[in-house]
Amino acid sequence: MRRWNGWGDDTLSVPLPAGALEWLAARAGAASPVPDASLAQALAAVPPSRLPPHRLVRTDALERLLHARGQSLPDWIALRGGRIERFPDGVARPSSEEEVRALLHYAAQTDARLIPYGGGTSVVGHVNPGAEPTLTVNLRGLNRLRRLDAESRLASFGAGAAGPEIEAALRARGFTLGHYPQSFEYSTLGGWVATRSAGQESLGYGRIEQLFAGGRLETPAGRLALPCVPASAAGPDLRALVLGSEGRLGIVTEATVRIAPLPERQTVTAVFFPAWSAGLAAAREIAQATLPLTMLRLSHPAETETTLALAGDSRGLRLLRRMIELRGLGEGRCLLLAGAAGGGPRVRRARGELLALARRHGGVRVTDAFGRRWRGTRFRAPYLRNALWEHGYALDALETALPWARVPALVEAVERALREAAATFGERLHVFTHLSHLYPTGSSVYTTYLFRVAVDPDETLARWRACKRAASEAIVAAGGTISHQHGVGLDHQPYLAAEKGELGVAALQALCRQFDPRGVMNPGKLVE
Amino acid sequence: MRRWNGWGDDTLSVPLPAGALEWLAARAGAASPVPDASLAQALAAVPPSRLPPHRLVRTDALERLLHARGQSLPDWIALRGGRIERFPDGVARPSSEEEVRALLHYAAQTDARLIPYGGGTSVVGHVNPGAEPTLTVNLRGLNRLRRLDAESRLASFGAGAAGPEIEAALRARGFTLGHYPQSFEYSTLGGWVATRSAGQESLGYGRIEQLFAGGRLETPAGRLALPCVPASAAGPDLRALVLGSEGRLGIVTEATVRIAPLPERQTVTAVFFPAWSAGLAAAREIAQATLPLTMLRLSHPAETETTLALAGDSRGLRLLRRMIELRGLGEGRCLLLAGAAGGGPRVRRARGELLALARRHGGVRVTDAFGRRWRGTRFRAPYLRNALWEHGYALDALETALPWARVPALVEAVERALREAAATFGERLHVFTHLSHLYPTGSSVYTTYLFRVAVDPDETLARWRACKRAASEAIVAAGGTISHQHGVGLDHQPYLAAEKGELGVAALQALCRQFDPRGVMNPGKLVE
Repeated sequence: MRRWNGWGDDTLSVPLPAGALEWLAARAGAASPVPDASLAQALAAVPPSRLPPHRLVRTDALERLLHARGQSLPDWIALRGGRIERFPDGVARPSSEEEVRALLHYAAQTDARLIPYGGGTSVVGHVNPGAEPTLTVNLRGLNRLRRLDAESRLASFGAGAAGPEIEAALRARGFTLGHYPQSFEYSTLGGWVATRSAGQESLGYGRIEQLFAGGRLETPAGRLALPCVPASAAGPDLRALVLGSEGRLGIVTEATVRIAPLPERQTVTAVFFPAWSAGLAAAREIAQATLPLTMLRLSHPAETETTLALAGDSRGLRLLRRMIELRGLGEGRCLLLAGAAGGGPRVRRARGELLALARRHGGVRVTDAFGRRWRGTRFRAPYLRNALWEHGYALDALETALPWARVPALVEAVERALREAAATFGERLHVFTHLSHLYPTGSSVYTTYLFRVAVDPDETLARWRACKRAASEAIVAAGGTISHQHGVGLDHQPYLAAEKGELGVAALQALCRQFDPRGVMNPGKLVE
Repeated sequence: MRRWNGWGDDTLSVPLPAGALEWLAARAGAASPVPDASLAQALAAVPPSRLPPHRLVRTDALERLLHARGQSLPDWIALRGGRIERFPDGVARPSSEEEVRALLHYAAQTDARLIPYGGGTSVVGHVNPGAEPTLTVNLRGLNRLRRLDAESRLASFGAGAAGPEIEAALRARGFTLGHYPQSFEYSTLGGWVATRSAGQESLGYGRIEQLFAGGRLETPAGRLALPCVPASAAGPDLRALVLGSEGRLGIVTEATVRIAPLPERQTVTAVFFPAWSAGLAAAREIAQATLPLTMLRLSHPAETETTLALAGDSRGLRLLRRMIELRGLGEGRCLLLAGAAGGGPRVRRARGELLALARRHGGVRVTDAFGRRWRGTRFRAPYLRNALWEHGYALDALETALPWARVPALVEAVERALREAAATFGERLHVFTHLSHLYPTGSSVYTTYLFRVAVDPDETLARWRACKRAASEAIVAAGGTISHQHGVGLDHQPYLAAEKGELGVAALQALCRQFDPRGVMNPGKLVE
């Protein structure tokens, strides 16, 4: 079962390693657990449904509670604090396009709002209902592989297919999609398309924008079919309207994706650099050398230390620490992880070129066990959020992307803005940053911060608000995008006009009116 | 000077090689020259301007004639036959964004239509005026490099910069854009963006969609500024609205592009395959192997023979023919050209992997002189259109793209449709095809056809119409895009709804209304 008020499978816990709490206490203050609201309390708060009955619509309290919120920190604060406030009035789980169309018809007749729902893993409020009567449409029933054209390397799935279902269906036929966002185990193809998702291996396989070749969108104004051609000059690419539409234009029901052969070999190489400036210069050169790598990820020194501290205290790790210190890499060191995949010779060559570039900047390669460990546990990392919360720490992350020339100043500005915001409410943050997706022209910047949960949920929410606002303003001031991979939803909406311009926002609103004249699709998200 | 009624520089002629006319006569019938209208006749047909005076607007007959048409075959028929019919009422050559805005203001006050004009190389009617009073805005005055961020590999140009200006400015700083459409010598950055241009080396450098990182659009509703970030999940990507907008939303005045270091070495390898099926299989495997190549181009047997026939009869070519025949490559052979660029080791490796794949399909590599010749003369090829017309032959090309599994049937269907159309007007076509842009999931298909010019321009136009309609219907029936690289303009508009759907066309119309409420921007192009 999914946890109703946290991340992941409720039979799986990832405890903090020994010493981690002391380490965090020295950085963000000693914390104590804050009691959570119980499931019974949360269920008791679900009000009667305002929707008339329909054969596809369930209105029981548990189903409505389970679809009330996503995975943002405000969502957690509401769920853990028992202050959920708004619930969908009903939940439908269609299993065909015809049922999706029936639900659009039902919404039109009943004046209900519709929220498309995939894995419920949004961290920016994409699936939260507004004040109006709302039907949440869970698309997990549309999860099958529908067609596979091996010659053209194209596969069509129902949009509700989750990451593991997609990879299992493709693996059986010798292919992979290669899209691994951290939410991979739960998030869905339709959700990836609607939010412009970026997987951890986007360097090799592409973001969902590059992988999404065509598909279908059911809208209040009818069906939009996006043909699947390798490229076209026939006017604006309508796929781009659907990518990032966040449920405002309609419901993605099918997506055709570009697939790749299963790689013979996959590696993750770990390299330590003596300083941030050296790591940054190397990472940029490697990204600009367009080597056949699938992933690049560079941790800032504070994140590097956090990774080492939270990795536990195994004999292997102690040896690793001693080894890199003997090589002169002490305070200020930073960690680069680089993934490669494909045939043996290609992987060897990519690693060889990578290491040659890294060495020119003082990079020291460490054992592959380090990279293997990252790869093996990457979908376990979000479980640490549960453990941290249970010890009294709230964890949030925010991200942007911008040209290389502005990356170093932005990293400093965001971390400073967060620390200054925390000072206003008398707390210390532990904050750390990595570059998660590297491009020839720039990089994403992913900053994680951790602070103590207050006893009063409203106070915890106020702390988050102060941090989020300060960091978002720093991002806007630096000309970064307000989101590289999480989307807009509710939380980033105040900053969208700075990026798109008033005219750009008006254009998006015109598109919403065109596809959804009565404004029933996921209102309040993306644009007003 | 540009030719007023044909391709290119009027001091440059590329004559047909010896024997070419006999070779063509055997395939499309013997032709005789048809006299063209003179420049004096064409100028005499320019009617008085309907526009009120403005300091930026020229209304002399020559300027208006020179901006009346593009380079489509219907444009040629009109220009050569002296049946131009519609001219812009004025031509402005702004040299700043402020002047562009002044022209938008002038159009609003005078109810004039505006046509943005770059190099005038459209082959689908993008720049042709309609019936209403029209001002053509020639953007060649906005042709400077404005900013270059070497660290982030981004360069901003005025949108009127033509290919050679862009490459010269970048070359001086050690960079290249790598965008080489056949119109490279005249077409402009803004035109590439507005028509979703694909350069011959798009395999390595990307189509303009991948190169266009941000920019500015001046619209009747105000300025749309597109920020330049490496990637974003902040809602739909507004660059995609501008890419392919064909002047309907506004005027692109500045574009920031992703640049690459100048390659140390560039090669074009030529390989002959014994049959189309072998060449096709090899080309697909090479495209799917994602080697670091910059270009792949596979000619169908009829195009291969045409290339050899029109390449002339030098001693080198005779040796080449004898060599490939000795290797058993006779009738049905087809030619693959593959470009590579970069450092020496990368180029060597790419060529090595390419040739290993090619050999598995019976490919025979020939001298690099063949590839060098293609590279050296690639922008001379369109001049052959002049020579052919002057001998009484009209030449046109059309193109699409579709998944690999449907490529072979589409090639046959388009060629058959063209031959059958020609039969209805009692002519034989010479028709030949190549795959010009290859992708892992599919390929573009580029078909060239040649027929005799009739004495009556209306009859020549009717011949073109019959051919174009038949081929376009075959493309639509096969599910190909109506244009892979030429755009929609006037000529492809009847087929756009089949591809975009009614709802998709309505969305484009909604965007036009949003940016251009009074419908003054390039009316009639792209969508009605």
